[in-house]
Amino acid sequence: MSLAPAILAGPGPTQRRAMAKAITLLESTRADHRAQADALLGELLPHTGRSLRLGISGVPGVGKSTFIEALGLFLIERGHRVAVLAVDPSSTVSGGSILGDKTRMERLSMDERAYIRPSPSSGTLGGVAEKTREAMLVCEAAGFDVVIVETVGVGQSETAVAGMTDMYVLLQLPNAGDELQAIKKGVMELADLVVINKADVDPAAATRAQAQIMSSLRLLGMHGRPEHAAHDETLWHPIAMQLSALKFQGLKEFWTAVEQFRQRQTAGGRWDAKRQQQALAWMWERIQGGLRAAFMADASVRAQLPETTARVLAGQLAPSTAARALLTAFHGQAPGPAPSSPTSDFPSSKVPGLAHAAVPGAAS
Amino acid sequence: MSLAPAILAGPGPTQRRAMAKAITLLESTRADHRAQADALLGELLPHTGRSLRLGISGVPGVGKSTFIEALGLFLIERGHRVAVLAVDPSSTVSGGSILGDKTRMERLSMDERAYIRPSPSSGTLGGVAEKTREAMLVCEAAGFDVVIVETVGVGQSETAVAGMTDMYVLLQLPNAGDELQAIKKGVMELADLVVINKADVDPAAATRAQAQIMSSLRLLGMHGRPEHAAHDETLWHPIAMQLSALKFQGLKEFWTAVEQFRQRQTAGGRWDAKRQQQALAWMWERIQGGLRAAFMADASVRAQLPETTARVLAGQLAPSTAARALLTAFHGQAPGPAPSSPTSDFPSSKVPGLAHAAVPGAAS
Repeated sequence: MSLAPAILAGPGPTQRRAMAKAITLLESTRADHRAQADALLGELLPHTGRSLRLGISGVPGVGKSTFIEALGLFLIERGHRVAVLAVDPSSTVSGGSILGDKTRMERLSMDERAYIRPSPSSGTLGGVAEKTREAMLVCEAAGFDVVIVETVGVGQSETAVAGMTDMYVLLQLPNAGDELQAIKKGVMELADLVVINKADVDPAAATRAQAQIMSSLRLLGMHGRPEHAAHDETLWHPIAMQLSALKFQGLKEFWTAVEQFRQRQTAGGRWDAKRQQQALAWMWERIQGGLRAAFMADASVRAQLPETTARVLAGQLAPSTAARALLTAFHGQAPGPAPSSPTSDFPSSKVPGLAHAAVPGAAS
Repeated sequence: MSLAPAILAGPGPTQRRAMAKAITLLESTRADHRAQADALLGELLPHTGRSLRLGISGVPGVGKSTFIEALGLFLIERGHRVAVLAVDPSSTVSGGSILGDKTRMERLSMDERAYIRPSPSSGTLGGVAEKTREAMLVCEAAGFDVVIVETVGVGQSETAVAGMTDMYVLLQLPNAGDELQAIKKGVMELADLVVINKADVDPAAATRAQAQIMSSLRLLGMHGRPEHAAHDETLWHPIAMQLSALKFQGLKEFWTAVEQFRQRQTAGGRWDAKRQQQALAWMWERIQGGLRAAFMADASVRAQLPETTARVLAGQLAPSTAARALLTAFHGQAPGPAPSSPTSDFPSSKVPGLAHAAVPGAAS
């Protein structure tokens, strides 16, 4: 029996159980489960897309849990229903470093207006992110109107989270090394808003960090932005703000900024355009993952790979020659076209730059 | 008749003609040329690998041509034979923004101890980079002992060049925006050496930039570096130095640093380890390109793609469901495993971090 009616029925214990079952189904790797999951997604899809999707990342120790719990409590007090999901590829190894711990977000997790789900704990980053993305659809169908997707600062998980949310918030500590790492990883560039958390601990340092990050955001934003952008009043310019989640200070200002972001993005036609772009990018990302998986699972490839690799390492075989040989083995008697053909790039093979300037209105 | 004997025969007009023909053959996309090219690579391969491969990048206006010409003239005076290649994916569109201009490096290009070849001008970045990588092997087989690979700061070409060279040099102007862009693009992190060019124009600004970049290099290098690294005297720590290519100032100091880099990398076992890692990464990169090309050329995929894309954009089809459907179409009756399977990541699907700390000695 389909889980969709119970998910769509409205708040209550039945809905919660159906949501948990649905997400477990989505996370299963069994082929028959996958078929059921696709059918379920098809039923839920018309009822999705009406939430505000908020991505939040930050290195361990920055206070993500405290921030998300404080924000969640703030929001449910104002009548919102809040779902918290996570993308944590390291959970495959560690058993879950975020949201796995039951004592995290204790108050929020006990409230029936909130729904908290730990990161899927198996698969590659692409696999984990896909399951979280699908779980988000379940939460939306169940009427949660704010979906927070959290990730830690490992690998490419920030890019994956920015690629599935409407607004991407970076949590920072007031220290220069933290900022430089974020710039280096390309995460600062993705940020629509930077929160300097724990601002109460050292107000002077927090104020310096805020000025420094504002300056970096301006410099990073200057490049690649169209000429007319300066005069476009619907355009959101990323900002940095101070906050103390522990003391519940700055949450109201934070939410005002989020609302303003949504209003400007919508007015500029960028809200829907960004979601469409994300959907397409996600499709291509999963196709690429599927091609990789099929290649690695191919019997001929597996048979040739060890010797081919050894010969490449020994300098006996050019890497490009080796690649062509393995591709021919994979495609059997009918090899594909030369890898260097101009068609060999996907229309959008990875999540594209999702910063403000990079996502023009659909019309432009 | 094979071109290999003429390439291996030693300097002279016959060798130069054979090199030019060989590289043209490597750049051809015709299937029969490709087979000949693979055979030629196989013949040349035992005679390759003995050059110092130097990657150089910098934004337009930083003075790359002037720097490379000055360095090239400096090196041939000291008995080296210098080849200059380029990776410029924009040349597909523009007809070549670097090395295409005949007036560039006029003195160097007229010297028989130097060999200059413009960027291949068709294909994707992967395709262009592959041809440059193969051209490098031709130059090495011909006895050129310094191969300079140049690229402009567009797209991912810097990563591609860092992935095919032993040492990666970033040219910078003395200005903070330039530095921030390099950090943001992850290029600063790849750099083994940063050259602040045009230092003679404003010595005070150049000195400030040098201090600033040194500080950034230290901060960027701190993370992910093993504990014992501080005590490893064979470890190279990236540095920033001032130079004026126009006035031929600082070239000797630059080359001393390059030699020291080579000596430390060799002593620490990292020289060969890095090349092996690059070769494997390159093989996987080309496999991925080939899989993409085959997918995009598939008749079933092409037939379904427009409607599938439209339905994803309209929110009628989940991106993950769409990806699975297209993969099934591609694989025909026997779909590959689920994209989320843990095997779906290549051992090394992109050029890995090639910075010092990320490439430990083969033994560690």
